[in-house]
Amino acid sequence: MGRRFTTERKIRFSHCDPAGIVYFVNFFDMVSGAVEDWFNEAIGWSFNEMHIRQRVGFPIVSTGCEFFRPCHLGDRLELELSIARLGRSSIEFAVTGRVEGDEKFRARHKVALISLDAQRALPIPDDLRAKMQPYVKEAP
Amino acid sequence: MGRRFTTERKIRFSHCDPAGIVYFVNFFDMVSGAVEDWFNEAIGWSFNEMHIRQRVGFPIVSTGCEFFRPCHLGDRLELELSIARLGRSSIEFAVTGRVEGDEKFRARHKVALISLDAQRALPIPDDLRAKMQPYVKEAP
Amino acid sequence: MGRRFTTERKIRFSHCDPAGIVYFVNFFDMVSGAVEDWFNEAIGWSFNEMHIRQRVGFPIVSTGCEFFRPCHLGDRLELELSIARLGRSSIEFAVTGRVEGDEKFRARHKVALISLDAQRALPIPDDLRAKMQPYVKEAP
Amino acid sequence: MGRRFTTERKIRFSHCDPAGIVYFVNFFDMVSGAVEDWFNEAIGWSFNEMHIRQRVGFPIVSTGCEFFRPCHLGDRLELELSIARLGRSSIEFAVTGRVEGDEKFRARHKVALISLDAQRALPIPDDLRAKMQPYVKEAP
Repeated sequence: MGRRFTTERKIRFSHCDPAGIVYFVNFFDMVSGAVEDWFNEAIGWSFNEMHIRQRVGFPIVSTGCEFFRPCHLGDRLELELSIARLGRSSIEFAVTGRVEGDEKFRARHKVALISLDAQRALPIPDDLRAKMQPYVKEAP
Repeated sequence: MGRRFTTERKIRFSHCDPAGIVYFVNFFDMVSGAVEDWFNEAIGWSFNEMHIRQRVGFPIVSTGCEFFRPCHLGDRLELELSIARLGRSSIEFAVTGRVEGDEKFRARHKVALISLDAQRALPIPDDLRAKMQPYVKEAP
Repeated sequence: MGRRFTTERKIRFSHCDPAGIVYFVNFFDMVSGAVEDWFNEAIGWSFNEMHIRQRVGFPIVSTGCEFFRPCHLGDRLELELSIARLGRSSIEFAVTGRVEGDEKFRARHKVALISLDAQRALPIPDDLRAKMQPYVKEAP
Repeated sequence: MGRRFTTERKIRFSHCDPAGIVYFVNFFDMVSGAVEDWFNEAIGWSFNEMHIRQRVGFPIVSTGCEFFRPCHLGDRLELELSIARLGRSSIEFAVTGRVEGDEKFRARHKVALISLDAQRALPIPDDLRAKMQPYVKEAP
């Protein structure tokens, strides 16, 4: 089925809006943070190493999200990440947000490796691609 | 062709990330702010009136964005908003971001009217729908 | 010496600015989140219970911070909180941020209990004050 | 009396918290943005020029704020900036926030010029200091 990476976020006061629920923009920040955690913890490639030392990055190509139910102050949000498609330079993540098993949103989030200085796409190095491969979802 | 609503944002230091470009999450905040401005200025329905007095809101159903080129500190971003589809309760906005005519991103942003207390969908009132109608994109 | 409450934050990409260091505004969000964690974990009074059910809150009266050294992407920031002064309605927190023992900033953060509907100060209830008392710093 | 610089912010939905008022952290972002506008518009020194080309910056040394009254969704906040003290490398700003003449907060915000690469204090260049001088508050 493909490996999955999970990470948790506490829903705080500052995430919520005057309607008393999480302001949706904060979910994108959490999805992006989950991708950062995955690079760091699952692939062993920290954003510090990547951006500051190697001068490469994974800017967003496209992102999209369906929101099923609101999240509230005090919720513990579980983010589950897998790879929907692994390209030459690009990675399309599938990220699901759940609170106590209840699905709150489902996102597709596509990034691509570039050189920060040349602003040009780079192929994902083979040794890192090998570590990413187990997270690719298998066809049903 | 349908009427369009435009609003401008100055790209500030706090919008930018260590790669020196706008952190994509801030674009969603700008898109959401453009929708708020449109309700306020084009439809005459302020978010204060809506959320605080009438206890209704337009939470996000789904959103998606394609990013073509990065935005930089000091850019003046023009946001152009029209309606891709006007449903019974829902509005699907098409929002384009440009800097000096250069297209930076294109978003689809769907919201739906609900009662904040009952958490149930409401039909968009006819007088407000009439004001929204001119912003609906005509089929090509 | 008074009890201390500690909580940790991972410094992420989205906290950092084009100078490659934490944008200072994010430290205030972290300080405020540490206060929220303290209420929740040390006092047993969740912000959800407080704001949504009891309709009371602790808005900010004043806040101030000295910044000694920058924080970087990948740092693990330890926040240490104690009470500098416990008033009838108000609490003045002293919050220190450290990375591997190195002091990064020191904040004073004063909040006061109010009724959200009446917008009037309320005395801190005795049972909660008793739980706060151990965190008050003793005079040297 | 010294010259003053003013700039305005619209209080939006995303600035507000579940208590229906501006989350205080957003005021610091607005104060910081007002300082950025002042550098850009009053001094003629853009943050892009400063950070990206000249590799210098004005990190925060200390900041503090007293909050008098809450701000609400839909308010138009006027920020007024002057200089409380102009040092060799440092500038201490006094920033006041008002809505329709009603004072909402008063901040002190101290920054100091550094070389981003050497991380060392630099004296403010004389030609720029001359442009800053009119904003220094005179003693009463």
